[in-house]
Amino acid sequence: MPITSFVEVQPDSHFPIQNLPFGVFKPQPESEPRPAVAIGEFVVDLSVLADAGLFGGPYLRNTDCFHQPNLNKFLGLGRPAWKEARATLQKLLSADESTLRDNASLKQKALLPSSKVQLLLPIAIGDYTDFFASQHHARNCGVMFRGPENPINLNWFHIPIAYHGRASSIVVSGTDVIRPRGQASQSPKSPPYFGPSNKLDFELEMAAVVGPGNELGKPIDISEAADHIFGLVLMNDWSARDIQAWEYVPLGPFLGKSFSTTISPWIVTLDALEPFISHPAEQIPPPFPYLTEKEPKHYDISLQVSIVPSGEQHESVVTRSNFKHLYWTITQQLAHHTVNGCNLRPGDLLGTGTISGPEADSLGCLLELTWNGQKPLSLDGNISRTFLLDGDEVIFTGCCKGDGYIIGFGKCSGKILPSP
Amino acid sequence: MPITSFVEVQPDSHFPIQNLPFGVFKPQPESEPRPAVAIGEFVVDLSVLADAGLFGGPYLRNTDCFHQPNLNKFLGLGRPAWKEARATLQKLLSADESTLRDNASLKQKALLPSSKVQLLLPIAIGDYTDFFASQHHARNCGVMFRGPENPINLNWFHIPIAYHGRASSIVVSGTDVIRPRGQASQSPKSPPYFGPSNKLDFELEMAAVVGPGNELGKPIDISEAADHIFGLVLMNDWSARDIQAWEYVPLGPFLGKSFSTTISPWIVTLDALEPFISHPAEQIPPPFPYLTEKEPKHYDISLQVSIVPSGEQHESVVTRSNFKHLYWTITQQLAHHTVNGCNLRPGDLLGTGTISGPEADSLGCLLELTWNGQKPLSLDGNISRTFLLDGDEVIFTGCCKGDGYIIGFGKCSGKILPSP
Repeated sequence: MPITSFVEVQPDSHFPIQNLPFGVFKPQPESEPRPAVAIGEFVVDLSVLADAGLFGGPYLRNTDCFHQPNLNKFLGLGRPAWKEARATLQKLLSADESTLRDNASLKQKALLPSSKVQLLLPIAIGDYTDFFASQHHARNCGVMFRGPENPINLNWFHIPIAYHGRASSIVVSGTDVIRPRGQASQSPKSPPYFGPSNKLDFELEMAAVVGPGNELGKPIDISEAADHIFGLVLMNDWSARDIQAWEYVPLGPFLGKSFSTTISPWIVTLDALEPFISHPAEQIPPPFPYLTEKEPKHYDISLQVSIVPSGEQHESVVTRSNFKHLYWTITQQLAHHTVNGCNLRPGDLLGTGTISGPEADSLGCLLELTWNGQKPLSLDGNISRTFLLDGDEVIFTGCCKGDGYIIGFGKCSGKILPSP
Repeated sequence: MPITSFVEVQPDSHFPIQNLPFGVFKPQPESEPRPAVAIGEFVVDLSVLADAGLFGGPYLRNTDCFHQPNLNKFLGLGRPAWKEARATLQKLLSADESTLRDNASLKQKALLPSSKVQLLLPIAIGDYTDFFASQHHARNCGVMFRGPENPINLNWFHIPIAYHGRASSIVVSGTDVIRPRGQASQSPKSPPYFGPSNKLDFELEMAAVVGPGNELGKPIDISEAADHIFGLVLMNDWSARDIQAWEYVPLGPFLGKSFSTTISPWIVTLDALEPFISHPAEQIPPPFPYLTEKEPKHYDISLQVSIVPSGEQHESVVTRSNFKHLYWTITQQLAHHTVNGCNLRPGDLLGTGTISGPEADSLGCLLELTWNGQKPLSLDGNISRTFLLDGDEVIFTGCCKGDGYIIGFGKCSGKILPSP
């Protein structure tokens, strides 16, 4: 019998007491942002609980981390503090604990209907890194752009390949995405043209939220990497494929990505995901010792992408994938990132790269689903798409099915607005 | 007759009253960081001048921008405030102005010997972008890695090519650089090995400091780009060529760069550089309208790189280049960066990429100077180098020669420490 909360939670809710994802919200447009967890249809204002002296454990007693406009200070405290917060909140919200349940005025102040508040970016992101950790995605892109003989470079099997992304343009779910303008070309050897992107795409990703991080020059050992990952979010790494194709040689993606990246407002902790660990297949060739884990871990998180086409109300599911389809684990990604001494800071974001699965209907972007626009994708209602049109809304969801409950990520969505 | 200050400034000083570069310092190890300008052998504490009510102009009268641990708030105020600060400080420090000159106690509080204070990173860098704007550098790298037939990709002549860099590992001049460890390989098709980098290099760059920036989705027009650049710093984009060569296909440089990037502590304003404008040659092919400037501008800044080899006292000059050797202007770089809607924020850093000149002794990195290690470089005292050894110190300097004065950048240096 799973634990239950005095807060009513529907069976299909993403936010039962087993989850308690962390975010940041404003109760009123003019309020200061403050940290929260989600439960059912409510957000729990952690600044109110802190003011009431309810975080009495050794790590949280004397900190103002829940009186901050983002979670960075909390992330900097590390796993003992994260575990203490989770345990404290699970106890406070449980059905058989009276402290909050029977205090009507405190409950009214601390528990606010999610529909009435504004969710914000939960973290101040110092640096955002995007990996390329799905072999299916790497292979499909390789076949498309370099041919079927040798689709994946040798380095890919030794390195969790990644690039630095743009932190300033990361936005929270629900923020509109303006179609970027830029240069593109029919081929790398043809002269370019300029205009709004004609190949606007989504990328189904998840991202790890970092804390506490390391000092410059002091790599994080793979055995300690998990202690530097607070949790995961859904991420849509919007991509303008035409801009990207023209610009990316030799220094990688730049303006084809930096116009917007959307993340879900709720960070699901690794602690909440613990029951959904999935062990990946053996990596061949075996990785270097600095990437070798005693017990490599993925998580069994079902992911889904829907499109609500411009002018329509109805959403069509266009792909179903799973976090466990990745080749490189998030701990390998993190250990690799620091092996050269690079420092990570609380609130840094490590994207997984597009999470494509092995099947045709589990591909994580339109580039793959339509084979670079050559095979239009049929949506419900006799509508088709190669790439996204103005007015299209893209919705990601993700969840783990537990025994009598769901651990979910809510949604990560954005709608395309025309170029100015 | 150039204006002079009551503060004694040696004729070869980089910091006469015509310069007044902005930085951030701590008077004592336990003090709060605060903004400053440099003059001669002194730093001027702007928080002291602000407390004395000496910033009385309309833009600075009611701001606490000089009571901040970095210059970001000041950068966010924009060019009118920057010009007001410069005019106010030039007046206060001039030989014929008594306010500060004749106030012994204020002077003692505000003017501190540079040798006694600690200079810090002047800005909190939200995002760091590195361009690839020198045609000589692009050609040399292309010949080396892709052969002499077609050394520069077609896109290079249409786009100021760039990639997102790592912001967290940017350090101020004088910070030691720990040799990174990582994977490398004899060729892209050979299996990799792991260890300390054997091809540690410097890259002679400058970087533009951004303010105030733009909202997401609202590109900055090329005609307004200069109003978003506060000034320039020297930058050493340290590179591990072996790590970079193995990792960079297809997503660009990552761990080969992210272990450290060093900038000079003083930001020289575009206003101070105004007398040293240099007009670049016509760009062929002509750029798109969004990159077309009525009056393209470079600056005539002489740049020099020296190495003090491990165990030696004496520095050997290894290259002499000039900022004006760049192909793409910094305003073109900035306009390109935002054309897709990407937002820039105060304190963002835009590196130029390695500034190589046309001559063999004006190349901006050891990769070019030694042709990827094939031709060792002779230093004074019968010493030679292909790449940097542990204990080597690399020193960049840069300056403009005015009529009776020098506008200089001070130095940007770092010493290599062994891998842990």
